[in-house]
Amino acid sequence: MKHALTVTRQEDFAAWYQEVIAEAEMAEESGVRGCMVIRPWGYGIWERIQALMDARIKAAGVDNCYFPLFIPLSYFAKEAEHVDGFAKEMAVVTHHRLIQDGKGGLVPDPEAKLEEPLIVRPTSETVIGQAMARWIQSWRDLPLLTNQWANVVRWEMRTRMFLRTSEFLWQEGHTAHADREDAMAETLRALEMYRACAEDDLALPVLYGEKPEHERFPGAVATYSIEAMMQDGKALQAGTSHYLGTGFAEAAGIRYQDKEGQQTLCHTTSWGVSTRLIGGVIMTHGDDDGLRVPPAIAPHQVVILPRLKNKPEDEALIAHCQSLKEKIAACSALGEPIRVLLDKRDIKIGNKSWGWVKKGVPIIIHVGPREIEQGIFAYMRRDNLRFPMDAPEAGALRYNELPQELFAQLADVLVEVQHSLYAQAKAHRDANIRRDVTDMAGLEAHFAEGNRYPGWVELPWSRPTGAALEAVVQKLKALKLTVRNTPLGGEPVSGTCMFTGEPAVERIYVARAY
Amino acid sequence: MKHALTVTRQEDFAAWYQEVIAEAEMAEESGVRGCMVIRPWGYGIWERIQALMDARIKAAGVDNCYFPLFIPLSYFAKEAEHVDGFAKEMAVVTHHRLIQDGKGGLVPDPEAKLEEPLIVRPTSETVIGQAMARWIQSWRDLPLLTNQWANVVRWEMRTRMFLRTSEFLWQEGHTAHADREDAMAETLRALEMYRACAEDDLALPVLYGEKPEHERFPGAVATYSIEAMMQDGKALQAGTSHYLGTGFAEAAGIRYQDKEGQQTLCHTTSWGVSTRLIGGVIMTHGDDDGLRVPPAIAPHQVVILPRLKNKPEDEALIAHCQSLKEKIAACSALGEPIRVLLDKRDIKIGNKSWGWVKKGVPIIIHVGPREIEQGIFAYMRRDNLRFPMDAPEAGALRYNELPQELFAQLADVLVEVQHSLYAQAKAHRDANIRRDVTDMAGLEAHFAEGNRYPGWVELPWSRPTGAALEAVVQKLKALKLTVRNTPLGGEPVSGTCMFTGEPAVERIYVARAY
Repeated sequence: MKHALTVTRQEDFAAWYQEVIAEAEMAEESGVRGCMVIRPWGYGIWERIQALMDARIKAAGVDNCYFPLFIPLSYFAKEAEHVDGFAKEMAVVTHHRLIQDGKGGLVPDPEAKLEEPLIVRPTSETVIGQAMARWIQSWRDLPLLTNQWANVVRWEMRTRMFLRTSEFLWQEGHTAHADREDAMAETLRALEMYRACAEDDLALPVLYGEKPEHERFPGAVATYSIEAMMQDGKALQAGTSHYLGTGFAEAAGIRYQDKEGQQTLCHTTSWGVSTRLIGGVIMTHGDDDGLRVPPAIAPHQVVILPRLKNKPEDEALIAHCQSLKEKIAACSALGEPIRVLLDKRDIKIGNKSWGWVKKGVPIIIHVGPREIEQGIFAYMRRDNLRFPMDAPEAGALRYNELPQELFAQLADVLVEVQHSLYAQAKAHRDANIRRDVTDMAGLEAHFAEGNRYPGWVELPWSRPTGAALEAVVQKLKALKLTVRNTPLGGEPVSGTCMFTGEPAVERIYVARAY
Repeated sequence: MKHALTVTRQEDFAAWYQEVIAEAEMAEESGVRGCMVIRPWGYGIWERIQALMDARIKAAGVDNCYFPLFIPLSYFAKEAEHVDGFAKEMAVVTHHRLIQDGKGGLVPDPEAKLEEPLIVRPTSETVIGQAMARWIQSWRDLPLLTNQWANVVRWEMRTRMFLRTSEFLWQEGHTAHADREDAMAETLRALEMYRACAEDDLALPVLYGEKPEHERFPGAVATYSIEAMMQDGKALQAGTSHYLGTGFAEAAGIRYQDKEGQQTLCHTTSWGVSTRLIGGVIMTHGDDDGLRVPPAIAPHQVVILPRLKNKPEDEALIAHCQSLKEKIAACSALGEPIRVLLDKRDIKIGNKSWGWVKKGVPIIIHVGPREIEQGIFAYMRRDNLRFPMDAPEAGALRYNELPQELFAQLADVLVEVQHSLYAQAKAHRDANIRRDVTDMAGLEAHFAEGNRYPGWVELPWSRPTGAALEAVVQKLKALKLTVRNTPLGGEPVSGTCMFTGEPAVERIYVARAY
């Protein structure tokens, strides 16, 4: 069976991932180490994710702000002192001018060396903490709920587009509260927001829960995550929410006068998701013909392709398509007007069609003289064009036909596609979680080399800390495994933790991870 | 007469500007030289400008992308060679890691020096040009219309919030075309888009026209601008659009195969507006009580303030206000649902009210037991709370009353406020353009020290170039004056250019400028 891509997921998942990104024209290398160019289709998906997430952020009463790109070196010196695991791979600005080197090139001007180097923000905790200390005086100023959409830079040695790049785009929420209870409620609100956005908008089923102590954000009291399973069975951490206690407030001097007139430290939180989500969408919904974009985040949900012949008849055909486009755009799906594009480019319809298949636009409509004559329109659902890797049934391009006056049913089709992508991903994930592994030997056997798509293993967990946890982490590391999170909610757990031999208090997931 | 600010525009326009920004909580110094923190009210206005501009950009078929923050030094070396006026004040990244200095501090790790320094983008022409060279092969790929919303950095010695900061936010459109005609049409389309956005959304009347040769973007064939008059009579260049000819395409190798199979250079354009627009909004619409935000770009258009008493009755009052809020939010004004906030903070209503007056929210509603009993609501229009500097009539806070069932009329009030702000600004501008100056002595007298708000002078212009233009520029510079632009359209011009003595071919505006 012929596919639009040259590599299948089965053959080489990593190469397939790169090919989807290239063929769907989502992003490309920029010529700058570790930085990518996000092309219109990739950026359009990010804009949709932003719009839907931002609406959720605003609905929660969080205000967007913008903080500086540069952070003085001294801000980090303090943090490095009191935070173990402080990351040091950052872009450092040392000069503010270029001069000619006399050999036709340019060099940093030695006369323009900064007194204090500036760091390109890897995250904005320190600078936002200082602003909070200025803005908060009294209990009346709390909670203070801020967020920013920004680019950040973390120097990465090995990069992979969308998943790990030196520069990436994200949102970072930062909030300050009167007490632990309120801050913890916000931490969990943000986690629930991420779950809802991942599942309802991106059609990514996720586990949401707490990370074990060694996986906490440096300085955090508790870190929560959403974790999604990719089609190769690996886990992707797709968003995190941190309860920071009073440590960051103490470092930045974030205090308020309480109702009794006492100066009191705030409890703070932070939470973020990034362009990494797009990597998750690709590895969850892509197939061997390219990407499949969930309608809620598709820049175009419907593309109309007229069968142009470079003849005078084209004019009437385009007018017909234009009118169809307007009718479709007047309908709503998933709570918004349908986003529909009429693609009039002077390219063969077969090439155009496969181009949109590779990009994963949810619905492709072909319109030619036959369709007009018969008063129908022929459309293709991208989601069931082919079948996911787990069920590799053969499937040719499938066209469906509807009488033209029923174009409004496209809205229902979009909702169906959204649900179908979620259902497929959830079925894949649920089918790839094992719960019957009881000892290290079993774990090792399950994740042995021969099993290329081992998925996740759910285990009873005694919540070890300190040295006991470290011992578990090292054992797993030897098998290239990680613990993901301990899901919130769910049924009570019984049994024994296979790592410590102690009674289990919760469940944990073990997996390979991105 | 008492005002909400301590400084009036008459007393000290520059100090007044800073006070508006502080008191309206729009932005503040960040502790990082030349970089500001944009606070929720300032950022909310930027989000509104972005949303409205982005809709115009998308409607024109331009695709948003994202390009890297960092640009390799070598990209600039080439540009520095062939572009006169190449700006060299840029932030230079030279290291990618920090290490402990052994004295409790951190320093750039000498082991982690970059082989080639990276520049924090001051604009993205070079890196986008290289991408275009990859993306364009044939005439079928043209026009290529891209835009990005991004932060950029230009090291500035003297900074002023929103008007001139080292880091600022902007959009930069970059397009490639088959020929001059198509590229020039795009240049003027972008200019018209900026005019429409400035006038219709920001209520800023602008002159739109071409900049004289010496004010062109380095390397451009023609530069167009929109120019707005501030309340102190100075000009603010609020947006620019450049026709770049084939020079940038040649440097980056942007070529296409035309219909005859010939490799041909593209004609390119670029166009941008930035957070500077917010400075223009402040200096155009602000008064001695703070900012007045045009409803189209107000983050909240209506704020409801309940007269809370910290008593059990408050509950019913808040419920009443909540219901009013929902009814108002269900109405539309200026093509969108009304953005309404219920401010329940535990602060005295007088302080809250003045807080919103200083922020410039278009309509403030007070609701207390009297209003509920009488079935009315009392609202205040921020635009006519006081009068603009040119007509300093006394005016107390004015409340208007409407029967509650007429809340839908608020939509009309918002439209009125939008138009009234534009009309006031236009009347101010038109009243401050002189057309009767005929020689240098007259010009010098008009702009003499005693005349603090001289506005602009319109003059017949012979379009000098080269040395003749340079002579004019130097004469004006001695008077701290600049030429702004030569407006497009308008009536034919007659008379003589006072600078060159030659027959005029167009009009030009002379002004002090930001």
